[in-house]
Amino acid sequence: MYGVASLSPSYSLPFLKIMDFKKITIIGIGLIGSSFALALKKQGFNGKITGVGRNEENLIKAKDMGIVDDYSTSHAEGVRDADLIVLASPVGQFEEIVKHIRDKIKKGAILTDVGSVKAGVLKKITPLIPESVSFVGGHPIAGKECSGIHAATPDLFNGAKCIITPEENTNKDALEKVIDIWEKTGAVTAIMSPEEHDLVFAAVSHLPHVVAYALVNSILDVDEHILRHGGRGLKDMTRIALSPTELWRDICAYNRDDILTTLRKFSSSITHIIHLFEQADWDGLEKEFTRAKKARQGIEPD
Amino acid sequence: MYGVASLSPSYSLPFLKIMDFKKITIIGIGLIGSSFALALKKQGFNGKITGVGRNEENLIKAKDMGIVDDYSTSHAEGVRDADLIVLASPVGQFEEIVKHIRDKIKKGAILTDVGSVKAGVLKKITPLIPESVSFVGGHPIAGKECSGIHAATPDLFNGAKCIITPEENTNKDALEKVIDIWEKTGAVTAIMSPEEHDLVFAAVSHLPHVVAYALVNSILDVDEHILRHGGRGLKDMTRIALSPTELWRDICAYNRDDILTTLRKFSSSITHIIHLFEQADWDGLEKEFTRAKKARQGIEPD
Repeated sequence: MYGVASLSPSYSLPFLKIMDFKKITIIGIGLIGSSFALALKKQGFNGKITGVGRNEENLIKAKDMGIVDDYSTSHAEGVRDADLIVLASPVGQFEEIVKHIRDKIKKGAILTDVGSVKAGVLKKITPLIPESVSFVGGHPIAGKECSGIHAATPDLFNGAKCIITPEENTNKDALEKVIDIWEKTGAVTAIMSPEEHDLVFAAVSHLPHVVAYALVNSILDVDEHILRHGGRGLKDMTRIALSPTELWRDICAYNRDDILTTLRKFSSSITHIIHLFEQADWDGLEKEFTRAKKARQGIEPD
Repeated sequence: MYGVASLSPSYSLPFLKIMDFKKITIIGIGLIGSSFALALKKQGFNGKITGVGRNEENLIKAKDMGIVDDYSTSHAEGVRDADLIVLASPVGQFEEIVKHIRDKIKKGAILTDVGSVKAGVLKKITPLIPESVSFVGGHPIAGKECSGIHAATPDLFNGAKCIITPEENTNKDALEKVIDIWEKTGAVTAIMSPEEHDLVFAAVSHLPHVVAYALVNSILDVDEHILRHGGRGLKDMTRIALSPTELWRDICAYNRDDILTTLRKFSSSITHIIHLFEQADWDGLEKEFTRAKKARQGIEPD
């Protein structure tokens, strides 16, 4: 079913397409946006990087830290003359942002994003994008529970996967350029359709986040004061509950159906385990544990 | 409710009680048993440490590595003349082991354990323990997903919590000695009743383990091939699914009722979240996320 999700670590292009861009505008100067800028600068990108955001103080810091070359608090102003525009704000803001910039994007420019949800967002923004602009979706798998420019690093994407989500009518040249720029950051790109991406990441990312939040809350429901007794296992397991809640609210809203599908499967799995406990079926329980352990052993170590 | 679970980092005794022991026998030379031996040796324990287990090859290695001074594959032989006997094998084996050693333990000796479950195990072994032997339960919170002597380190318990679970009739001198020896390993001890311990650790340890296994399995249920797309968040969250399945089967069987209590609360929490998704109640969902994030921020960093 997911055969097209082939990783392409050796995807190579004849030229350094990265140099085709004279100006890159990044909208949303948080962890991902500023790490992307730092990675490009480390790779020798010699065009201009403009940061756009709502928080001027943050943008001034980003300029002082050498993350961006200049900045604007106006979306329309910031995207002027940009060859590549990267949407790096929470996905819930994309529609509003595209409405603001659509008439200001230069012809032939490429619009991309780093959002964790694809299909639902595309449905909203595709009708807004001018024909002269090519959109190519992207999703680097490199979040951290910490956020903001102070957590940024040029190596954030090094060895990380970045999923590129073209549709049938995506401009091939723009697609190649977006793949190229992510590989320049050190990421390993993979191609998926937006729909495939959303189900896969509902399962391997969105569901685990929701479960981490629910796990903390159900421990609080047992007793409000016992969380501190948790060891390293619990800390590792609930670290993603430190993630920005606004961002995850957006992701849940935009990927509602796929997350619901995975939540229902998870709920069935928990119900089954409760049943095994009730029946004192320890052989059955150990079988469940062994299935999970074997699969977990099959994924690459950190 | 859990007021007695006070940590006692400054618990101090007038003498180095550790020196009272001339021979310590550790039954079960895995990660915990051998790290305990190494920690004592690092602290200058100059008595004899005897390792007991079923696997002679492992015991020979432990002697070669300087973890134990001598060893025996016979429980009865190994505990002879020991002042302190530490049960460090999976809890499911405790009953059988105590049956083997009960007539061989010297009068006045202390029997302790490192098991993750207390009340259910005590019910089985208490009637087997001779009156001349003092039992004091212990549980160092220092597991790792890796196991065995090769993962052992003298610093495993350094800064880790160790829960000591006396009952009303527990010998006070034996209790002090067991507290003292754990503090010598670098652990911070806390006192709980066996029942309190079991509910607390059902919530903060056993439930998370069961959830980690269930999470991996429900991702496999969505699609068998997508686990590899998970990022650091999923890896952190499912690392404990690498834990020994036999050990966790035992823990589940011995702490069945408390784990069921916490599993049912967790299941309700998931059902509630599914309901919020169905109603598209994103404010309600963000409230859940915020509650969890705030609580998670309140526990000490790793």
